[in-house]
Amino acid sequence: MELLEREIRENGQVLEGGVLKVDNFLNHQINPKLMKALGDEFAQLFKDAGVNKILTVETSGIAPAVFAGLELDVPVVFGRKNKSLTLQDNMYTTSVYSYTKQISNEISISKDYLTASDRVLIIDDFLANGQAVAGLLSICKSAGADVVGIGIVIEKSFQKGRRWVEETGIRIESLARVASLDNNQVVFVGEEGTESNE
Amino acid sequence: MELLEREIRENGQVLEGGVLKVDNFLNHQINPKLMKALGDEFAQLFKDAGVNKILTVETSGIAPAVFAGLELDVPVVFGRKNKSLTLQDNMYTTSVYSYTKQISNEISISKDYLTASDRVLIIDDFLANGQAVAGLLSICKSAGADVVGIGIVIEKSFQKGRRWVEETGIRIESLARVASLDNNQVVFVGEEGTESNE
Repeated sequence: MELLEREIRENGQVLEGGVLKVDNFLNHQINPKLMKALGDEFAQLFKDAGVNKILTVETSGIAPAVFAGLELDVPVVFGRKNKSLTLQDNMYTTSVYSYTKQISNEISISKDYLTASDRVLIIDDFLANGQAVAGLLSICKSAGADVVGIGIVIEKSFQKGRRWVEETGIRIESLARVASLDNNQVVFVGEEGTESNE
Repeated sequence: MELLEREIRENGQVLEGGVLKVDNFLNHQINPKLMKALGDEFAQLFKDAGVNKILTVETSGIAPAVFAGLELDVPVVFGRKNKSLTLQDNMYTTSVYSYTKQISNEISISKDYLTASDRVLIIDDFLANGQAVAGLLSICKSAGADVVGIGIVIEKSFQKGRRWVEETGIRIESLARVASLDNNQVVFVGEEGTESNE
């Protein structure tokens, strides 16, 4: 998605260790117009998939997910990372390791909001090692819900998550696919090797 | 706001200890159409306030905030409750106690996204004791940013937050004002005493 790639190029920062910082428009400051464009794009891509629920994880997946949910006219459920007193028992829970934050989080989803009759579209901000998506898939499996698609805002295609998802056979659509962050440069899939021709 | 009051009446649950659980449409499952209506309402209420930035705290304030941001054409910044490796140094930080979760969280906002030239609209899902709003106000003060309004989705008017905010002199607009949760009944401001007439 060109709009998103341009935003990443203009406002993303590459940090040490292959971290792409997009705090300017997605992970801390949010650009509402861009989020609407992302949500509309997910809705367009999955409009024929029979989605009746969108699943995401707090926090940064929520903005694109609600715009997709508005367009598809389906509710959004977000996995919670900390159990609160208002969310007791009756939960599907799984553990997800974040390489960026170097901590494991429990992700919980209430059994009230995910059932065997659901056809789920998973939306998340990043796909790197695939931990968050794997956690959501595991919860959907526990609920007997059918996952009909996975929509990712930014995929780090050089990490193992993409291949792992492909092996599940579930359709995946990533709006930006980063092939490399080497030398602090963002190279998208399809652009690899262009530098060597210069 | 009648739409919101109806949603609370139909889908809210009153738990022990004055907790209003609205996991059905705001705090766990999100109703995108309702979120758009809330965001549009905030935008309408504050359209003449010269807002150039919306501030919220993760997680549940984000959905109404991004719709308000879309309508007002301003970015949304959310305070983060856990510092991640991609958000280092250069932060305004304050401690906020959550009575619901019975824990203190550090809330951080990057100095890159809040400055003395900002005219801020704070949006949050709940106002009870006012801890989150107080934390955001304290951060805005540190940044020298001007807070021109506070928009709350659900205010528990019987707790101390509302009065505390009023004493700051900052304009506050709450879309639903809950006067009482006694006897597991939701009574909105303006409806008090109606039962005794029956």
